[in-house]
Amino acid sequence: MADNSNKGEDSKSLPRVGVVGSGSFGTAITKILCENMKSVNWWVRSPYVKGYLQKEQRNPNYLSSVEFDINILNTTNDINELVENSDIIIFVTPSIYLLDSLSELKVPLKGKTVVTAIKGLIPQESKIIGEYFHDTHAIPYEDIGVIAGPCHAEEIALERLSYLTVAFQNEEKAEILANLLRCDFVNVTLSNDIIGTEHAAVLKNVYAISAGMAHGLGYGDNFIALLLSNAIREMEKYLKIVSPIERDINDSVYLGDLLVTGYSYFSRNRMFGNMIGKGYTVKSALMEMNQVPEGYYATNGIFKIASEYDIDLPILKTVHKIIYKEKSAPKSFKKLTKKLS
Amino acid sequence: MADNSNKGEDSKSLPRVGVVGSGSFGTAITKILCENMKSVNWWVRSPYVKGYLQKEQRNPNYLSSVEFDINILNTTNDINELVENSDIIIFVTPSIYLLDSLSELKVPLKGKTVVTAIKGLIPQESKIIGEYFHDTHAIPYEDIGVIAGPCHAEEIALERLSYLTVAFQNEEKAEILANLLRCDFVNVTLSNDIIGTEHAAVLKNVYAISAGMAHGLGYGDNFIALLLSNAIREMEKYLKIVSPIERDINDSVYLGDLLVTGYSYFSRNRMFGNMIGKGYTVKSALMEMNQVPEGYYATNGIFKIASEYDIDLPILKTVHKIIYKEKSAPKSFKKLTKKLS
Repeated sequence: MADNSNKGEDSKSLPRVGVVGSGSFGTAITKILCENMKSVNWWVRSPYVKGYLQKEQRNPNYLSSVEFDINILNTTNDINELVENSDIIIFVTPSIYLLDSLSELKVPLKGKTVVTAIKGLIPQESKIIGEYFHDTHAIPYEDIGVIAGPCHAEEIALERLSYLTVAFQNEEKAEILANLLRCDFVNVTLSNDIIGTEHAAVLKNVYAISAGMAHGLGYGDNFIALLLSNAIREMEKYLKIVSPIERDINDSVYLGDLLVTGYSYFSRNRMFGNMIGKGYTVKSALMEMNQVPEGYYATNGIFKIASEYDIDLPILKTVHKIIYKEKSAPKSFKKLTKKLS
Repeated sequence: MADNSNKGEDSKSLPRVGVVGSGSFGTAITKILCENMKSVNWWVRSPYVKGYLQKEQRNPNYLSSVEFDINILNTTNDINELVENSDIIIFVTPSIYLLDSLSELKVPLKGKTVVTAIKGLIPQESKIIGEYFHDTHAIPYEDIGVIAGPCHAEEIALERLSYLTVAFQNEEKAEILANLLRCDFVNVTLSNDIIGTEHAAVLKNVYAISAGMAHGLGYGDNFIALLLSNAIREMEKYLKIVSPIERDINDSVYLGDLLVTGYSYFSRNRMFGNMIGKGYTVKSALMEMNQVPEGYYATNGIFKIASEYDIDLPILKTVHKIIYKEKSAPKSFKKLTKKLS
């Protein structure tokens, strides 16, 4: 990795930032950082993507309309190089690839600020990402941050005004990262709810699947509005038990993120649900998508957590039954309709 | 009006019900009542509509795909006849026509159960309908009910599963009306918040206009999700001051109704906002629509109420500025984006 990072006059005080992952949201976050920084470190898994980025200044696979300034990007395939050269490391791989991305890591993460923008659980452990870094890499919670929505990467590519939420226990730390993300098309809100924002970001994908299923099954706008108003109450109930701190569930990081995922045609989770509602089997719906939607894993992970805590979440249970127990979607939704109000 | 009402074996105990208004929601409610009752009284303003209904069994102007059983309907143009023959009277005209509909009323309303399904204020007085009936017709609040959504009439016509909310101070009264509305495609939830549900039903139209404006101005899904998550917080703030009782703002009658109106392409209010966002003047947008959307009046009425109570509602203010003070929509929204989080 070149040592040309942060060479600007006012950049000496700026932390060095690295992004791990080159999916759509990783590409979006890197784009945003490039608006504000003279140097951004970017770990991408594939040598092909690295080469393509360097030659064509674009990610060949995601948001390929976005052109990067190659003088700002330090692209690498070496996770150790990235960690070594970064003070803040933003993890934004699909949740199931995180452990794999870390498998070659020898440089300690401790001492770094570890930020997750992953909207999923560690599948093997039904754990949110922050908790995993805390437990496995001994990162203290004050060094763990979260970047959350409401935000579709596709709209970042189009530079449509979007709002991100940055959560840290400590407001100053949040402010430092927020300042690196604020730009013409991104507003940033701060939060101190590092546990709740992560769980909410995972759970909303399950509800997006449910909205897609309802749509695919032929339910209309009236029902889907009702479904999502029940979903946000389910989410509140769940968060109150899993992380009982004071929060307004209608803040944009909870409700806004649920709405953008539940209503937008950009949402892969909603699309996955829609296909199942229309009659695809789970297997064939997954095969049709070039990436397994996070909500597929989340449904199982959250179901386990909710069972452990004994939280009754009818919509989650319905999605779980359909995806993991091969229950009929029309019948399961018919039953669900009696439980909503 | 024929005296063939409620002739069935079990119908003696059923109250006699009259519907006032033949717009889309009035037609939808009449359709629902026809699922459960042997006789429904229906006041329609126009002799032509009355004649058409009797001959063609359809409302020529709204939801004209719905076929009525003419043996159930007692259609009249005489408001006194309707009131005299009904125990429960459901008012569902556009708000600006209500006083006109009542202008020939000589039969006292007192002693009847008066229900409003109007989603607007009395324009002359910035009053919700229930309050108007209480103040002007001396109807005690225990005899006043509300029918609210989340519910687009168009989906009732299609018999897509929808949920209504029936609000009365007294649960037994609510249950009686709810039982007349429950059917294969309608679930009903009860509420005791007769003031809040009415205000919310009015206010949500203002927010639907704002969502339409944002869309028309080119804002994307990310921003609209954020906007509506701010809107529900504004609504909660407003309701807490105007009617400070315990309520969950995410119940479907508040949040669900906001979502169905804010997101659905069936929504006239959203469409009105969309046209303004796209550059139509208010006047030309109104001319294009064959019915002035409720939110147009609501914006002014709620603005007055909020000013009286000194409640700061940035989204409402923005819509008001654009519609009533000819302020630029792009600039006003640009300013608004700084106030949202």
